[in-house]
Amino acid sequence: MGIRTAEQYKASLRDGRRVYIRGEKVEDLTTHPILSVSVETVAQGFALSNSPDPEIRNLFTAFHPRTGEPVNRYFITPRNSEDLALRTKMIQRSIELTGGLPFGKDIGTDCLNAAFVVAGQMGKKQYQENAANFLEFVRKHDLAMCGAVTCVKGDRAKEPAQQKHPDYYLHVVDRNQEGIVVKGAKIHITSAPAANEIIVLPTRQMREGEADYAVSFAIPANTKGITFICRAGRGDWTPHEFHPGHPPRELTEAMIVFDHVFVPWDRVFMCGEWQFSMLLAYTFATFHRFTAISYKVPAVEVMAGCAVAMAEYNGLEKVSHIREKLADIAGYVETLRALTNAAAKDPVMYGDIAVPNPLIANMAKLHFAGRYHEFVRLIQDICGGILATSPDRMDWENPDIHGYLEHYLGGSAKYSTEDRLKMIHAAQRMVCSHESSFHEVTTVHAEGSMAAQKMMILFEAPLQRYKAMAQAAAGIKI
Amino acid sequence: MGIRTAEQYKASLRDGRRVYIRGEKVEDLTTHPILSVSVETVAQGFALSNSPDPEIRNLFTAFHPRTGEPVNRYFITPRNSEDLALRTKMIQRSIELTGGLPFGKDIGTDCLNAAFVVAGQMGKKQYQENAANFLEFVRKHDLAMCGAVTCVKGDRAKEPAQQKHPDYYLHVVDRNQEGIVVKGAKIHITSAPAANEIIVLPTRQMREGEADYAVSFAIPANTKGITFICRAGRGDWTPHEFHPGHPPRELTEAMIVFDHVFVPWDRVFMCGEWQFSMLLAYTFATFHRFTAISYKVPAVEVMAGCAVAMAEYNGLEKVSHIREKLADIAGYVETLRALTNAAAKDPVMYGDIAVPNPLIANMAKLHFAGRYHEFVRLIQDICGGILATSPDRMDWENPDIHGYLEHYLGGSAKYSTEDRLKMIHAAQRMVCSHESSFHEVTTVHAEGSMAAQKMMILFEAPLQRYKAMAQAAAGIKI
Amino acid sequence: MGIRTAEQYKASLRDGRRVYIRGEKVEDLTTHPILSVSVETVAQGFALSNSPDPEIRNLFTAFHPRTGEPVNRYFITPRNSEDLALRTKMIQRSIELTGGLPFGKDIGTDCLNAAFVVAGQMGKKQYQENAANFLEFVRKHDLAMCGAVTCVKGDRAKEPAQQKHPDYYLHVVDRNQEGIVVKGAKIHITSAPAANEIIVLPTRQMREGEADYAVSFAIPANTKGITFICRAGRGDWTPHEFHPGHPPRELTEAMIVFDHVFVPWDRVFMCGEWQFSMLLAYTFATFHRFTAISYKVPAVEVMAGCAVAMAEYNGLEKVSHIREKLADIAGYVETLRALTNAAAKDPVMYGDIAVPNPLIANMAKLHFAGRYHEFVRLIQDICGGILATSPDRMDWENPDIHGYLEHYLGGSAKYSTEDRLKMIHAAQRMVCSHESSFHEVTTVHAEGSMAAQKMMILFEAPLQRYKAMAQAAAGIKI
Amino acid sequence: MGIRTAEQYKASLRDGRRVYIRGEKVEDLTTHPILSVSVETVAQGFALSNSPDPEIRNLFTAFHPRTGEPVNRYFITPRNSEDLALRTKMIQRSIELTGGLPFGKDIGTDCLNAAFVVAGQMGKKQYQENAANFLEFVRKHDLAMCGAVTCVKGDRAKEPAQQKHPDYYLHVVDRNQEGIVVKGAKIHITSAPAANEIIVLPTRQMREGEADYAVSFAIPANTKGITFICRAGRGDWTPHEFHPGHPPRELTEAMIVFDHVFVPWDRVFMCGEWQFSMLLAYTFATFHRFTAISYKVPAVEVMAGCAVAMAEYNGLEKVSHIREKLADIAGYVETLRALTNAAAKDPVMYGDIAVPNPLIANMAKLHFAGRYHEFVRLIQDICGGILATSPDRMDWENPDIHGYLEHYLGGSAKYSTEDRLKMIHAAQRMVCSHESSFHEVTTVHAEGSMAAQKMMILFEAPLQRYKAMAQAAAGIKI
Repeated sequence: MGIRTAEQYKASLRDGRRVYIRGEKVEDLTTHPILSVSVETVAQGFALSNSPDPEIRNLFTAFHPRTGEPVNRYFITPRNSEDLALRTKMIQRSIELTGGLPFGKDIGTDCLNAAFVVAGQMGKKQYQENAANFLEFVRKHDLAMCGAVTCVKGDRAKEPAQQKHPDYYLHVVDRNQEGIVVKGAKIHITSAPAANEIIVLPTRQMREGEADYAVSFAIPANTKGITFICRAGRGDWTPHEFHPGHPPRELTEAMIVFDHVFVPWDRVFMCGEWQFSMLLAYTFATFHRFTAISYKVPAVEVMAGCAVAMAEYNGLEKVSHIREKLADIAGYVETLRALTNAAAKDPVMYGDIAVPNPLIANMAKLHFAGRYHEFVRLIQDICGGILATSPDRMDWENPDIHGYLEHYLGGSAKYSTEDRLKMIHAAQRMVCSHESSFHEVTTVHAEGSMAAQKMMILFEAPLQRYKAMAQAAAGIKI
Repeated sequence: MGIRTAEQYKASLRDGRRVYIRGEKVEDLTTHPILSVSVETVAQGFALSNSPDPEIRNLFTAFHPRTGEPVNRYFITPRNSEDLALRTKMIQRSIELTGGLPFGKDIGTDCLNAAFVVAGQMGKKQYQENAANFLEFVRKHDLAMCGAVTCVKGDRAKEPAQQKHPDYYLHVVDRNQEGIVVKGAKIHITSAPAANEIIVLPTRQMREGEADYAVSFAIPANTKGITFICRAGRGDWTPHEFHPGHPPRELTEAMIVFDHVFVPWDRVFMCGEWQFSMLLAYTFATFHRFTAISYKVPAVEVMAGCAVAMAEYNGLEKVSHIREKLADIAGYVETLRALTNAAAKDPVMYGDIAVPNPLIANMAKLHFAGRYHEFVRLIQDICGGILATSPDRMDWENPDIHGYLEHYLGGSAKYSTEDRLKMIHAAQRMVCSHESSFHEVTTVHAEGSMAAQKMMILFEAPLQRYKAMAQAAAGIKI
Repeated sequence: MGIRTAEQYKASLRDGRRVYIRGEKVEDLTTHPILSVSVETVAQGFALSNSPDPEIRNLFTAFHPRTGEPVNRYFITPRNSEDLALRTKMIQRSIELTGGLPFGKDIGTDCLNAAFVVAGQMGKKQYQENAANFLEFVRKHDLAMCGAVTCVKGDRAKEPAQQKHPDYYLHVVDRNQEGIVVKGAKIHITSAPAANEIIVLPTRQMREGEADYAVSFAIPANTKGITFICRAGRGDWTPHEFHPGHPPRELTEAMIVFDHVFVPWDRVFMCGEWQFSMLLAYTFATFHRFTAISYKVPAVEVMAGCAVAMAEYNGLEKVSHIREKLADIAGYVETLRALTNAAAKDPVMYGDIAVPNPLIANMAKLHFAGRYHEFVRLIQDICGGILATSPDRMDWENPDIHGYLEHYLGGSAKYSTEDRLKMIHAAQRMVCSHESSFHEVTTVHAEGSMAAQKMMILFEAPLQRYKAMAQAAAGIKI
Repeated sequence: MGIRTAEQYKASLRDGRRVYIRGEKVEDLTTHPILSVSVETVAQGFALSNSPDPEIRNLFTAFHPRTGEPVNRYFITPRNSEDLALRTKMIQRSIELTGGLPFGKDIGTDCLNAAFVVAGQMGKKQYQENAANFLEFVRKHDLAMCGAVTCVKGDRAKEPAQQKHPDYYLHVVDRNQEGIVVKGAKIHITSAPAANEIIVLPTRQMREGEADYAVSFAIPANTKGITFICRAGRGDWTPHEFHPGHPPRELTEAMIVFDHVFVPWDRVFMCGEWQFSMLLAYTFATFHRFTAISYKVPAVEVMAGCAVAMAEYNGLEKVSHIREKLADIAGYVETLRALTNAAAKDPVMYGDIAVPNPLIANMAKLHFAGRYHEFVRLIQDICGGILATSPDRMDWENPDIHGYLEHYLGGSAKYSTEDRLKMIHAAQRMVCSHESSFHEVTTVHAEGSMAAQKMMILFEAPLQRYKAMAQAAAGIKI
């Protein structure tokens, strides 16, 4: 079929998967008050592929390189900088068009593209075929995926084998002619309950003696032994909020427990080749940080917009220290955009696969994460204390006090009090809400910590070139 | 009576005051699901004055300097650095003992102490007597107060008189032999609905032609024409949380609308003396920033403790980059403590009133506010992504998945999984919740913005001394 | 002739120009102990155009677009991103090949390219022809230029007309049929005494009533009325230094006094068109910041190399906090490189002239300047206190104490003590010398201050796009 | 004699000591063009003790606690916070009065006070007597000292015993009934060639098996086997500078080589007690960081003064972004002052010795070092590019160009051009000179690196208190 509709996608989630949230088992994700928000957010990606607007449809779909049939464009393995730039564009346009990120095919192909690179380097034909066949399978069935990478890890100071029990890192506990049996738990898996297929990668480099932990595969979400335990999300808009016309957008994370899950050999991409675990983790990280910085650009643009708007609504747009803060805000956003585009324009080729520039992608991610809290602070500073203490929409609609609010909560005379309140509510969602603090944490931890980015920057930067230049300047013969 | 009980205090709030929250009018604050939290938090201050433990009771009460009767120690006007240090100690002990800040007498006396200083400088006997009499009144009736300072301000680029309407700053609209009539709205007023008395100060320096805006007075909370519109708070603990044994602590802010409110002359501390409005705003700010830095110390200690604990629970306490982050965390906390204590030890005397050192108090506040977001980031970094995605207490108690959580969410073997989850929930409240982002905003805005602190640092620092030293070093004759 | 030799260039400086340094008049720059260093540094650029290595020669020369004759490649007006990238490459290769920056044609064409853009916008044919003719003139005679932009400015709070005297900004004091007479002084003019031609631009936007200050022209360095007052430089290597095999490289700045200097009309590019003064200053700034970030990349690479080398020489390269600092150092360098290349890849077209992307060029410059001091600190930190207290080469060569130095100043056994000392001396030049502090100051001030870059970022960034996105997120109809 | 004159001190340096600088042996320090500057700087301390002004004399001298004879006040072991505050005052007044720091007795007693603390903790009577007798000796002869702490260290990744040779850390190579023989080299020793006595302390904690490296003693500077190799300093003012009326002040560092130096037992304070090496290093560091922060306050005040003055001389003192920078500058200086005073006010008692508060002293030092480069940047920013390119005094005095300089280098009309140039020259010495970059390096490295300060902050901060507070907030029973 190639291109599914949003409805077909949603129907596919009623497949018996085992999902828990807020202490309760979920019978139908698509109607659950919280999880349906995630489902609808992902479903928007299917809607885009079926858009009546040919410009949109042509962006989000492409022709299968062999059959010519239409497939989702995420399923086109990038061969050059244009392909990478199109991934950025898809991500950014999907946010602009739907108000949220229809996550699933981006990270799924981040995983798969990394698997292709590593299978190529390993020179194991079977894994290459497995990955190629799996790609054809998802192309054909237009599947949503999640990337299950981070293990729960137990005591962080201990190697997998030294832990209280062997399951803090997902590992192979049995194998036979048909396949392997795995046990463990993956955590913080974005959009997991809304995926059709789970792709598992090792959480980090594995060493000799940890071969059972060097395992990668893909498996349907309703496979026996799999349980999703989801974090709670916000659910629908409440009557206390001013909000835009579309439903709220959000992606729910889950812990995925693998309780003796069987994986057939043809779904396995790595099993025991610990020497390649680092390359797999590293290549996935590069692809996925590139995905991340791509979607962070519109995310921070809209936050910056709250600051621009609130400065104007408060009559502050010409005050010198406010202008300096707006310049810092704009510089943060545009440096991220420039580095993101530069990572696409200067890829590293592994065979015929274009990998986003790892050095630039990591610097972009580090720029984003390292300065995000300061960016938030600048926005909070410009918006004012009303962010914290604003009345809600029900206050506004209560005739007893509406007049007071209308009279006293005006700002610049160019804007209505109601629009000012609406903007305050938007800014609250961005920088003064449970969601906003959640995003601070994911900024620090999602797609790898800043320590991980620094490690890769150190690995990729031309330190020996610097050193040789310094030796020449010192008059040292080498 | 001098010292009221918590029950007497709570009863006093059932006085017909007009309070709205989440779009609805509140009949009884003491039983309202959200506002009762604020009331109980403030009531703990009364409980401390009645503590059976003499050490506690003696800290929170003192002898009336003239009558020798017991009064709340906040009502002792500070005469020296020991008195200031005792204010810090009361604030910090009250947080340690009750889990929250029983706000009301601290800010009330910050206002009153400033009023004393200014009345002394103005040399207007009537204002001095009014302030002294009001102090006796609150001493005798052991009243809770709030400080109503910040006006709504409208277009920030415009002076009061240039605004769309004259009410964006609270002002006198009428006066007669009995008193004055005021109109306007004060915003972000912490603990306002839980106060017995409202003390109003000008929000900033007023200039010639703005005499009607230079007004200060005290008025009971149930005075005709006063309406409180409160921000929503969290309410009681939910079954989804792990939490300590005591009730949640929180203070609700309110906007206070003054709709032609009559104030008798004997409650007025300033009316028209715009030349002294800056001194009043400035002296209040110094007292109140000192109060603020005093209560911020235990607030950031407990946050730092989450980082220390989570580092250990995760097995990371010996990792070099974690240790460096813990040193940064500790340095942030202890610099705040050292500066807070230094502000008390080196007061400025106005007559016989000891004002906390304005230069040091402002630097302490700027240290707190300017580095808070980075402090939060360090804690988020150490705690890990589980902050964002942790399962809740109902998940933990569901036998279907309890075993998975117990097995997979352990950290260092020295601690139980349950304790680790409890610590994660505490850390969430500190750095990954609506409350935590609310605190980021108040860090930036409460007790004046960083720009205000820089202005006062510039005003107080010995720039001319620096310049003279530089001229000597340059060989310039002066 | 098109391409001059280094000797021809040097001979051309013996033209009677009036140059002062360290209180004395200079008879021959090419033999002066300090100024000859600048002259030789610039002369290397001529040597590169005549390199026997065709790859080098072909980089630094190009074919005249009309006549096909060889000309210096800087004299090719950029038409696309490849031309801009070649400018970056010329600058960076010239530093790698000669150890210094042969400054003069880069800034000269930064000025001229800006003049072309503005002449095009003004639509004044005469100015367009003047600029075109002057370009042909410098192409034909292969001239070195300087860009005289910054006026002395007097009291910075006052407009030109309010100053104590009218000369703090260079201005037209007379005009007749043959030309104009100008008076004033330009300051901080890099490489000025080593230039053949001086190109003058307005130092900033001029306003109505300041038309006499809106003046731009080119004039030979030995024109009557022109005096250069140079800052002192380092001169040749001393016997106390370890140094590389090539002579020291340095560019001397000068103040250029214009004491009633006559400029013929055919050398004038602007005279009175104050409305276009901002565009001229702005376009020059964009071109020149792009030049600056291009040459800063190798400058900071070699500094980074000192840190990499010293970490290894001291045996510290595997220590975790040193590695984190090296990652910060590499991230600083590579972010600068990535943004510099991005500015070339995404130009703005004015007619057929490619202007480097102003937003990205300004962010790159701000990144460079805003984080340079921290970069220096990291290098100082890694290198160690020996940077400050190192013995000199004469100590090393004194047999009385040589043995002690050899024995005690070793580091990692992989390197000789002598090489370690050589590297320490190189690092001293970079981060612990008069030169290094001089570079800190030029980092802050050269090519415009950080405030100037923030102003341009604010001007160029899509603030209205951000705002519209925020309004959509707020549900505000526009 | 108790109190020596400056002349007596200088005469005492002609004692046959072996000193090298710039490759040459020094016959008489007191007449050497560079080293005499250090000698005179130290000699000023003797002049202060003999000041005709009783207020000064009484600050710098005190009564011997037993005999009542006058001794230098540095030789009074601190018993309380007032004694510590007096040390700060002596240091700061000596800089104000002489223009430099007469270094020697401060660090000498930092070492000795630490030796007293450790001898007390070891409970070794002989060491206690040795230290007490040595203190009497320096009191009686009014001696200048240096503190020789930092070893050359070789490969920093290796323990003393693993090095290429055993001498990278100073150690005992022989011992007999009369005393011990030591070998090694101490580096970066401030003011060393101008000292009468060298006090040696271990450079860091020594471990089991490193007992020979755990050695501390005092020895005259002219002892056989000792060689000083000095860094070059600036020497006298040049005619190219504008400068103040007093001679330049500077302290020269030296490497001190100990080539089989004999130390009699009665001069030994530790020999083999490696278990106490950490306490000795740590206590010395606390005393010495307190000395350091004390003298940094006037050092940064005068730097701040250059910024204040240059802002005024340039007419910029009311510009909003300049004012914000001045506030940052003042905040940096005053936070340092407040923490320095707080360290004195809250000492830790070891027996009857008052040790400055280690936590606060380390935070003050870290504040100073961690933000110094940014402070320098702000000053450079305010002063302007003229810092880098200013003409010199010989230019100013050349009548050919004097008129141009007078006319064009004026700033605000309130100040003469000559005063502006003088201030520029002072600012150059502070932030744009070899000296200024030297100070950047010593800021990072002197008195221990920032890593050392963070280690001590972590050690001293109440982490377990934080943790307990967090556990209470989490509801964890402990």
